[in-house]
Amino acid sequence: MPRNRIPEATIRRLPIYLRTLSDLVDDQVEVISSAELAEKTGFSSEQIRKDLAYFGAFGVRGVGYSTSHLSQCLRRILGLHKEVKAVLVGAGHLGTALARYNITRHKDVRITAIFDSDPQKTGQYIEGVPIRPIGEMKETIKREGIKMGIIAVPAPEAQKVALKLKEAGVEAILNFAPTKIVPPEGTFVQNVDLTLELQSLAYYVNRE
Amino acid sequence: MPRNRIPEATIRRLPIYLRTLSDLVDDQVEVISSAELAEKTGFSSEQIRKDLAYFGAFGVRGVGYSTSHLSQCLRRILGLHKEVKAVLVGAGHLGTALARYNITRHKDVRITAIFDSDPQKTGQYIEGVPIRPIGEMKETIKREGIKMGIIAVPAPEAQKVALKLKEAGVEAILNFAPTKIVPPEGTFVQNVDLTLELQSLAYYVNRE
Repeated sequence: MPRNRIPEATIRRLPIYLRTLSDLVDDQVEVISSAELAEKTGFSSEQIRKDLAYFGAFGVRGVGYSTSHLSQCLRRILGLHKEVKAVLVGAGHLGTALARYNITRHKDVRITAIFDSDPQKTGQYIEGVPIRPIGEMKETIKREGIKMGIIAVPAPEAQKVALKLKEAGVEAILNFAPTKIVPPEGTFVQNVDLTLELQSLAYYVNRE
Repeated sequence: MPRNRIPEATIRRLPIYLRTLSDLVDDQVEVISSAELAEKTGFSSEQIRKDLAYFGAFGVRGVGYSTSHLSQCLRRILGLHKEVKAVLVGAGHLGTALARYNITRHKDVRITAIFDSDPQKTGQYIEGVPIRPIGEMKETIKREGIKMGIIAVPAPEAQKVALKLKEAGVEAILNFAPTKIVPPEGTFVQNVDLTLELQSLAYYVNRE
């Protein structure tokens, strides 16, 4: 099946499966049934089987999945078996927090360049990565062959930044600005709502 | 079914259904089939039906769901039909970004108090909400009857803050600190990984 025929939601669940499997590998659990994986991830067994079936046959009927094999496969499917570089646009509070979080926590997707339009910020560093003027963005992205962009600018700037990223060669954008971005042609955009989780949390304080 | 028997993952999907339904109501779509809702949310129809079945019978066979009725029901199930107050602990880059994002964007869950241990920050305001010393946390939470807490402190502080929140009467915690918190007894803790989305994004830049 062509990659673009696989549902976005399936792709978004793969890192959740991967995280669970990695935890199991760390805990030296070698095999997990699809029922157990369902319980740990919160998705139904049918959903998990359907998602994985897009990419091949991974489980052994009546036995389950090899945690290390399946996590290696997921890593490869996602393209995380080699380092992926990303640029961050916007070094305000959110951008700074994201950069620190990412740079210190994840090794597979790494923010290697940060841009901001504020001359007071350029020249400063976040976890060793310099903040550069936005005017250098296009050239840097092209030179370094970066394909992933993270947007953390104010809402009114977000769409413009997405277009600039696309022009520079970025193919996939994660948008943290509190507005929905229309994907520039040929790009994939994921809009993140940081506070959606607050709504599900409300459920747990309304037990009467 | 008792509320605590309903899977966490189901509760986490409700705001996603709600957001989709609210968009449909805004677009004056009155009815949606479960297949269409599945396509829009990315969850399988079986998953959606299973999730909703915990709370009652909402759809009409062969017709679908009333968008306005179902969104009102979900709002009520989540407890979002009345305003929910939350406290934020930690007014660093991430906390500030979260507060601004939440206060300007959402009306249903509102951050009404912010705490920080840094005396340089206390007395300042984020979107009109004052930053108070952490020493006032317990009293404020008790007095205002706040049941929800958001943690955005450095990782080594997070567990301690969770305990303090619990002692003050908080029942549900959203943890943005880059560490897993063990839920204090009687509380519900949701650990958020801000950069999980980056991993799924990698998929879209690895088409070769």
